[in-house]
Amino acid sequence: MADAKMPYSLNSKKVAEATTRLLHERGVTMLEIAELVMLLQKKYYPDLTMEECIENVESVLAKREVQNAVITGIQLDLLAEEGKLLSPLQEMLANDEGLYGVDEILAFSIVNVYGSIGFTNYGYIDKLKPGVLERLNDKSDNNIHTFLDDIVGAVAAAASSRIAHRKQGEREIEITGDTIEGNNL
Amino acid sequence: MADAKMPYSLNSKKVAEATTRLLHERGVTMLEIAELVMLLQKKYYPDLTMEECIENVESVLAKREVQNAVITGIQLDLLAEEGKLLSPLQEMLANDEGLYGVDEILAFSIVNVYGSIGFTNYGYIDKLKPGVLERLNDKSDNNIHTFLDDIVGAVAAAASSRIAHRKQGEREIEITGDTIEGNNL
Amino acid sequence: MADAKMPYSLNSKKVAEATTRLLHERGVTMLEIAELVMLLQKKYYPDLTMEECIENVESVLAKREVQNAVITGIQLDLLAEEGKLLSPLQEMLANDEGLYGVDEILAFSIVNVYGSIGFTNYGYIDKLKPGVLERLNDKSDNNIHTFLDDIVGAVAAAASSRIAHRKQGEREIEITGDTIEGNNL
Amino acid sequence: MADAKMPYSLNSKKVAEATTRLLHERGVTMLEIAELVMLLQKKYYPDLTMEECIENVESVLAKREVQNAVITGIQLDLLAEEGKLLSPLQEMLANDEGLYGVDEILAFSIVNVYGSIGFTNYGYIDKLKPGVLERLNDKSDNNIHTFLDDIVGAVAAAASSRIAHRKQGEREIEITGDTIEGNNL
Repeated sequence: MADAKMPYSLNSKKVAEATTRLLHERGVTMLEIAELVMLLQKKYYPDLTMEECIENVESVLAKREVQNAVITGIQLDLLAEEGKLLSPLQEMLANDEGLYGVDEILAFSIVNVYGSIGFTNYGYIDKLKPGVLERLNDKSDNNIHTFLDDIVGAVAAAASSRIAHRKQGEREIEITGDTIEGNNL
Repeated sequence: MADAKMPYSLNSKKVAEATTRLLHERGVTMLEIAELVMLLQKKYYPDLTMEECIENVESVLAKREVQNAVITGIQLDLLAEEGKLLSPLQEMLANDEGLYGVDEILAFSIVNVYGSIGFTNYGYIDKLKPGVLERLNDKSDNNIHTFLDDIVGAVAAAASSRIAHRKQGEREIEITGDTIEGNNL
Repeated sequence: MADAKMPYSLNSKKVAEATTRLLHERGVTMLEIAELVMLLQKKYYPDLTMEECIENVESVLAKREVQNAVITGIQLDLLAEEGKLLSPLQEMLANDEGLYGVDEILAFSIVNVYGSIGFTNYGYIDKLKPGVLERLNDKSDNNIHTFLDDIVGAVAAAASSRIAHRKQGEREIEITGDTIEGNNL
Repeated sequence: MADAKMPYSLNSKKVAEATTRLLHERGVTMLEIAELVMLLQKKYYPDLTMEECIENVESVLAKREVQNAVITGIQLDLLAEEGKLLSPLQEMLANDEGLYGVDEILAFSIVNVYGSIGFTNYGYIDKLKPGVLERLNDKSDNNIHTFLDDIVGAVAAAASSRIAHRKQGEREIEITGDTIEGNNL
């Protein structure tokens, strides 16, 4: 709890912890996100391991820009579940209204951090809803995941972009013996 | 109020009304947004009238994409004022944390609808905070406008883009006598 | 050819004509783009006609923002075909380098004009490459369509968003008898 | 020159070198971009040194996404100078047409890599055109910098975002003694 007498100061560790905790509380595991990454990337990198996928998902989730989107999106899902939003925002979120695109906008801010090559992967899994996305998108229980399904897909797409950039770096080091300094996108 | 027995169906009129009502309740008038537009555009169009500025602001606010962003942003500001968000999102919004950029992301989705030429105008007034933006950005009272100040600036920037595109159309009709069909961006 | 003595003045009609002409010269018909739209939307609107799809594609292509992206992208494809770009841009475009994402960026500026609900459709067809996109993406001849395939997919995604917004408007008019003024996104 | 017999393989080092070389050939120095960063950030960090500004500009320019945008934009400026683009793209670029926004779109892809907090800084300096931007924007000689001025502003805005994120990290390490792992955005 924030102490009212303490002047405000951003605590990055708390933001990072809240991101992980909220994903966990909403039933999403690192493993499930990593499985989406594997699905997107195994065709390009047959040797890709689940460990690498998990590691890349964790790196994406360590970015402040990503954390802000995850926390804000899950917060809106939670408030919609509790029925605490104003009408008609409440109804639009509760029903995952197709013409409401703020969830896609937040998701896109996640993809953007790893560059434009992730746009396609995001759209693809957001449409097909494989693995954990199918469960999140299931409207049969009382959970509302209007933001979360897009956000999880975006994290997987961003992790895929990260892998694509890094694998290229590794390939070039093998060929040339050079290290490409700083090119960590 | 939503009737629990009614199946959900998007009501665009309610979304439009909520947009106008929320802006009004948060103390922002059409005239104030129009004044921002005048500030941005009078140098390019000396004959521009306040009526035209207001009309263009209203056209921007009639777009569903814009309405979704306005409603979602104001909702988050209201919840932050009431202290109802989870920590550390609550503290970040209450203190308009500089490293939290979801407000800029929502604002940008508004600017984008009228194309990329509005990017510059948005950044410019968001930095200088003229007119109504100064008041919204004033942290001395208990109101929280972390989202609203960016959103109002974005609506003004979008309206400016709309004017630029339309004025060009008018100029060409004068020169050529032709109408440019459909080119209403 | 521009007359050196004439002061420059934007001619919107010429920009619109160049857009249509370049698409035609690169072998893309309105019908083929409309078929992509039908593929994306028929499941939601079983009564959707090819006429409606074509009409919506034409409306998307009438937007200045879209025209700018189409012309710039095709120009870069043409220059790459002629081998006139500097190295290593020449090689990246000639080989549709996966880590070069400027084509996706231009495509995205097209989708954005009709709002965020088109993100998913764009990614989906850009990944699956149905219809005309398969042909454009075929690397067996000497044509280079590094930009064009993404651009055509984006125009189809934008037209799909336009249809989704308009169909909702029609549905509400039927229910309420009201017209939703101005909400033409 | 690419050897026709060599199979294509992305050479990241060449892309990085071309980025630096093209900026240099177009008359833009690291120091001038760093001065824009200093202008944007000195008010927030009075102790900020030019060395830090230069270092952050170099880190931004080491990102592949940024390099792609820089190279593509300068290529289009060069072709416009040589009069080698198709009409009306040639005229639009030669005259820095206000309703042509592809330059802003490329610039924005640069800003995006360091997150949404850079949007405002980009718009601000793109409007005010301080330092090197004024020279690039000067239409009195025969050089065309339609893309370059926006790109240089975007690199400065991205470097400013990078500084803001890093300074926060340093501040928190001082307070808590903790390192915030991986949060390098």
